[in-house]
Amino acid sequence: MKTSLKQNIAINLQPLNQCVRVTFNYDVHFTRGLFKLDNPLLAQAIAPDGQSTPKPVVTVIDGGVIQYQDELLEKLSVYAQHYRDVFTLSGEPIIVPGGETVKNDSRFLEQIHQSINVGGLCRHSYVLAIGGGAVLDMAGYAATTAHRGIRLLRVPTTVLAQNDSGVGVKNGINAFGKKNFLGTFMPPYAVLNDFDFLTTLDNRDWRAGIAEAVKVALIKDADFFDFIMTYADKLANRDMQTMERLIYRCSQLHLEHIASSGDPFEMGSSRPLDFGHWAAHKLEHLTNYNLRHGEAVAIGIALDSTYSYLTGLLLRSQWQQILSTLKTLGFALYVPTLTEQLDRPDHPHCLFRGLTEFREHLGGQLTITLLQGIGQGIEVHEVDLSLYKDAILMLKNWEVS
Amino acid sequence: MKTSLKQNIAINLQPLNQCVRVTFNYDVHFTRGLFKLDNPLLAQAIAPDGQSTPKPVVTVIDGGVIQYQDELLEKLSVYAQHYRDVFTLSGEPIIVPGGETVKNDSRFLEQIHQSINVGGLCRHSYVLAIGGGAVLDMAGYAATTAHRGIRLLRVPTTVLAQNDSGVGVKNGINAFGKKNFLGTFMPPYAVLNDFDFLTTLDNRDWRAGIAEAVKVALIKDADFFDFIMTYADKLANRDMQTMERLIYRCSQLHLEHIASSGDPFEMGSSRPLDFGHWAAHKLEHLTNYNLRHGEAVAIGIALDSTYSYLTGLLLRSQWQQILSTLKTLGFALYVPTLTEQLDRPDHPHCLFRGLTEFREHLGGQLTITLLQGIGQGIEVHEVDLSLYKDAILMLKNWEVS
Repeated sequence: MKTSLKQNIAINLQPLNQCVRVTFNYDVHFTRGLFKLDNPLLAQAIAPDGQSTPKPVVTVIDGGVIQYQDELLEKLSVYAQHYRDVFTLSGEPIIVPGGETVKNDSRFLEQIHQSINVGGLCRHSYVLAIGGGAVLDMAGYAATTAHRGIRLLRVPTTVLAQNDSGVGVKNGINAFGKKNFLGTFMPPYAVLNDFDFLTTLDNRDWRAGIAEAVKVALIKDADFFDFIMTYADKLANRDMQTMERLIYRCSQLHLEHIASSGDPFEMGSSRPLDFGHWAAHKLEHLTNYNLRHGEAVAIGIALDSTYSYLTGLLLRSQWQQILSTLKTLGFALYVPTLTEQLDRPDHPHCLFRGLTEFREHLGGQLTITLLQGIGQGIEVHEVDLSLYKDAILMLKNWEVS
Repeated sequence: MKTSLKQNIAINLQPLNQCVRVTFNYDVHFTRGLFKLDNPLLAQAIAPDGQSTPKPVVTVIDGGVIQYQDELLEKLSVYAQHYRDVFTLSGEPIIVPGGETVKNDSRFLEQIHQSINVGGLCRHSYVLAIGGGAVLDMAGYAATTAHRGIRLLRVPTTVLAQNDSGVGVKNGINAFGKKNFLGTFMPPYAVLNDFDFLTTLDNRDWRAGIAEAVKVALIKDADFFDFIMTYADKLANRDMQTMERLIYRCSQLHLEHIASSGDPFEMGSSRPLDFGHWAAHKLEHLTNYNLRHGEAVAIGIALDSTYSYLTGLLLRSQWQQILSTLKTLGFALYVPTLTEQLDRPDHPHCLFRGLTEFREHLGGQLTITLLQGIGQGIEVHEVDLSLYKDAILMLKNWEVS
């Protein structure tokens, strides 16, 4: 009797199907002079709760920014004093190195956690991160894990961070020698893009950020590519107004993609915004990060566009427009690393190992985005290595021609 | 001219309002004999992709479970061998201590990350965590941060984990002496509740898990409280069939709350499932975790029910039903810690400091759930400490009566 009752219950214990829907809202603002006293944007971003007590803010600043703008700390301090009813700086700003260094050493992460602890911050407090993509990635990982998520205010200071990484939902650091081995998918509380930061960028950083705009234009928006092609000279010559338009449109496309992809936290396999990136990731690694991310992406775009042309997906004229535009922007389209160990696809120094690593990182089957026209990406799951080899050699010849 | 053009653009650069919607689906299964070869549940949970290559699985096991079920490792190994087309164990199972120990020392977290790295796991691989709530919390934090999220399979082995923490969306470890200072909100890939694990629990762990069921019944479901009250004797005497029904209904209510709360990742202030928890958290801490979480929750429920009665929200008969039921289940409703430094609310050893700490953890204003009837929680934002003092003294008298 007892047994049959038990079986009866077992049959009734159907699995519970859980569906959790989470909605994240955040604004990406565009401004100049973020820390000028008459610019209330930052204070307004913190204040919307209308709460009476000033919110504590832990600040993390990219040392590379301080180097070019040594008055930043003073301006921040005066701004905080002016808006002291809205927020207070919790502890001294944490100044960290920019670039991959800050993601390679977990002590910077721990320093932020420590400061959050000492300041007694809660989930309704803020981490204000000012810097390039690497610093934002690291500070974002710190903020989104403390108390299971403190509000993150991103102030991206490079073209790349303002139009791409800084407006998205990814945070992370490197570990075990692997890029972004640890991280979270978690949107920021707000993004504050201040164009004034761009004026002190060196030429390489100014240019590198444009590569992601070319990428998203090529797979999503022919008009935007046309804009970049038309104004490539102006962009190369640091025309600020053109750059502002580029950043605005690029971040808009990026945000639209995240919102409409159906898989913003990338639980599936498809990542169509990764055009040109399998090669870029590998090139960065193989050159010990002497290539900036954007510089590597430009080469990746050139390579995958050439391959798209060779497979018959892309017209010759379109392919030439792409390469010419990249060239006018000032990008190198070939580095000798591309041809290293080219006949040994499994060799760790061979570019083609990047395909395997890309698949491993995504999980599941290989998915590469190619072009079937300007503004039209297409996903493929198989590649022809001999055609890719031809594409590399064409880039080499194109570069010297 | 240039200036006016710039101003023109600045006006057009409206903020971009981003809305990211993420949907997480996962099933909570109920079974017996999870690692019996004729039970395909675990293999099916891993296999739904229908992919041909076996998925690597890093396994983390609570040492407390192994202690009582020393055949578990062997059974797991045989099961994996049997279902080798579906998954392979990546490395040896990682055996970790149970309880808060595993959350206090970050080396256990790092051990899992290390194993994920060595095994070359990707986001479509799995971490299988078998154990009590603390082990699941820690392993979940490891899994949800590696590669920004590896699939997490939870196998909760205690009543508390099966009906409460193990079915929810929280992961975390302790840091700086603060509970869950680091963590993520991130749902598991699946939960596999195997009732057979409960047979080897000691009496305290068996009982402790029931407290969360009493809690959710009191604030959400009068019928469920009636069930617990009616079968309190059976539950105390370890009737498995009654316990299975309790766990099923409790996890169902918990899942419904998460799905329907509108704020599953707790970005706002309200956490109505925290009934009785402000006192429970403080009591656990003040007793150096000699009180189990569930035991502290039972006292917290008794206290907040008594306070609800004293404020006139709850009828005397309802209050007595609650205390009698907790008593029949075997819970102590009073510990001397409750009265320590009672007249000094700011003293670190005073229970009332728990109110401040609770508010700080949530952020924003204080929010406490009380009862306005059996099955009807109500949120309040202010409390009367002298009434709470009376409530504590009533519990003390009730206990000795």
